[in-house]
Amino acid sequence: MEVTCTHPPVRIDLGDRSYEIRIGHRLLDDPASLDGLPPSASALIVSNVTVAPLYAARLKAALQARYRHVHVVELPDGEAHKDWASLNLIFDALLENACDRKTVLFALGGGVVGDMAGFAAACYMRGVPFVQIPTTLLAQVDSSVGGKTAINHPLGKNMIGAFYQPLRVLCDIDTLSTLPQRELSAGLAEVIKYGPIADMAFFDWVEEYMPSLLERSPEALSHAVRRSCEIKAQVVGLDERESGLRAILNFGHTFGHAIEAGMGYGQWLHGEAVGCGMVMAARLSFALGCVDEDFVRRLTDLVRSAGLPVVAPVLDGQDNVGRYLQLMRVDKKAEAGAIRFVLIETPGRAAMRSAPDDLVAEVLRQSCLGDHERV
Amino acid sequence: MEVTCTHPPVRIDLGDRSYEIRIGHRLLDDPASLDGLPPSASALIVSNVTVAPLYAARLKAALQARYRHVHVVELPDGEAHKDWASLNLIFDALLENACDRKTVLFALGGGVVGDMAGFAAACYMRGVPFVQIPTTLLAQVDSSVGGKTAINHPLGKNMIGAFYQPLRVLCDIDTLSTLPQRELSAGLAEVIKYGPIADMAFFDWVEEYMPSLLERSPEALSHAVRRSCEIKAQVVGLDERESGLRAILNFGHTFGHAIEAGMGYGQWLHGEAVGCGMVMAARLSFALGCVDEDFVRRLTDLVRSAGLPVVAPVLDGQDNVGRYLQLMRVDKKAEAGAIRFVLIETPGRAAMRSAPDDLVAEVLRQSCLGDHERV
Repeated sequence: MEVTCTHPPVRIDLGDRSYEIRIGHRLLDDPASLDGLPPSASALIVSNVTVAPLYAARLKAALQARYRHVHVVELPDGEAHKDWASLNLIFDALLENACDRKTVLFALGGGVVGDMAGFAAACYMRGVPFVQIPTTLLAQVDSSVGGKTAINHPLGKNMIGAFYQPLRVLCDIDTLSTLPQRELSAGLAEVIKYGPIADMAFFDWVEEYMPSLLERSPEALSHAVRRSCEIKAQVVGLDERESGLRAILNFGHTFGHAIEAGMGYGQWLHGEAVGCGMVMAARLSFALGCVDEDFVRRLTDLVRSAGLPVVAPVLDGQDNVGRYLQLMRVDKKAEAGAIRFVLIETPGRAAMRSAPDDLVAEVLRQSCLGDHERV
Repeated sequence: MEVTCTHPPVRIDLGDRSYEIRIGHRLLDDPASLDGLPPSASALIVSNVTVAPLYAARLKAALQARYRHVHVVELPDGEAHKDWASLNLIFDALLENACDRKTVLFALGGGVVGDMAGFAAACYMRGVPFVQIPTTLLAQVDSSVGGKTAINHPLGKNMIGAFYQPLRVLCDIDTLSTLPQRELSAGLAEVIKYGPIADMAFFDWVEEYMPSLLERSPEALSHAVRRSCEIKAQVVGLDERESGLRAILNFGHTFGHAIEAGMGYGQWLHGEAVGCGMVMAARLSFALGCVDEDFVRRLTDLVRSAGLPVVAPVLDGQDNVGRYLQLMRVDKKAEAGAIRFVLIETPGRAAMRSAPDDLVAEVLRQSCLGDHERV
């Protein structure tokens, strides 16, 4: 198949930080993918030990036509390694190879690689250019777009980071063919997310095409990536630094981050925690009278059909509710100690608000005990 | 003395990131110093083990009138600790105290504290507000102004950082009374710097008032801080992210950073290395035919009169020139392996350019052997 980027790119409009998301086949080593990037003597591919053996050689060969020196650094794989030690491997590689302010970083991998390469690019010499080449569904539909970069702190997820936009995002759909099924499901959580917060017609489409998505139909995956990126581009274009609107993209993430941190990073994949977290946030929306039972049931069924958990883990046998509340209070959306949730006001529209602790506690009891089956 | 801020503040014009540098007496615990800062439930004072015992209690008392929770974190003192471990102490304090996106950081100390508090503010939850309260001359005339923040990497100084502007800079001249003489001299290096790059009338003034500055005349110090900040404000306002012009503020810093890194951070104070580095850069300017011997002699004499070294250290007994060149090649201004220097084109005007290695080597041989006395 010689098809490359067959559709016009999705554009993120952010003034002089605007950029394109290109979605297509064989973008990874298509020379046209690099058109218009700034000149430099050197480039650094940031990848991990799982993805690099699959794709780094092809990307390196393509880059060598443009950059005199192309270096590769392989990070350990997984959310548990999204920390300072891994970040420092990138800085070591940059400095040992005498990379300068014009060196271009290429993030080749999933969300963890993208977040770390992006944060390293934001900080190295106070900012060097970078390109996102997401190779997981989750990264293609969400984390590679919009310029959020970060590492974790033992006390909270993504607590240390920067808003720093890439020069370009290249979503090569072909790279999804090597994705483990568990990671495909994790990515579908973020695809599902866009319906309830912004576009119920897309939610209908995801329901209908879930079997095709799980079978990795290139057409279905391309559409899911494109529509997800379009919605995200629109939201980010209106609120780059999350002063308000952008927070709706965190639907399911307040509960989800608590699960990730409480279980230990990497035990639950980010998408799994978000999938379950969306079900919990939908229940909280129902408890507050915003949505009806039917919506909660539809969302729960769709999350489950994607192969994602809908029963939340018990984080503390003695005081499970207390542990969740404690973890959620260090969420970035919290303010003066009050937890704030992204809730569905009506299917297709979300808003950020706080909720009474007793209602949250009730949702936690339902969700952790599997009472959701009754909803 | 009940005088507070007697002069209008110096303004840094950067659009929606504009801010004021207030210079005066007793600003540290003047409630008016906090006027107009954004509301928040909490504040964190970032200081070090030397400065905190002198001033943290007064600042804390002033802040408590405005913020419900005021925390203090004390970092180890010195350039050798401008690293990830110290930075992480700030993140720990922020997270352990459940600080949120509105928490205001106050950097109370010298350049190292300001650089680290500023970088922590840039990264915590992808950006929280911060205020600079520089307590050293070097920080008041240079590092607290302009939004450069960073930590060191073993392979290079200030290699990991961000451009991140404070909400305000409070230069309390009274805090200079407790400054060790060696640090006063180090600060004078950056004061001297502004003359050759931008304003030879100010250079004349510094020559004339050097005795008063060394005796810590409040009037002389106030004028030196004000004029330095005015020049810096003008340069930063034209080129916030150092795409060109701003680099002239690094006069003396290419040689200086090599001295700092080569000797081990903290052995030479930053200002000492810059003082000596300016003499070396002036010699290189002379070697390139830009300035005359008289200028080099005047600058050398002024640096020496400030109590600063004018003889560069030998970094490697086997291959001293090679070691300097190696260290200077990882300078942030270097590009594609070529070292770039800030050179004086004519007294009062600077520009960034590269120089032939053999000329640089000759300057290094002169400077390290004390041949400067012949100039």
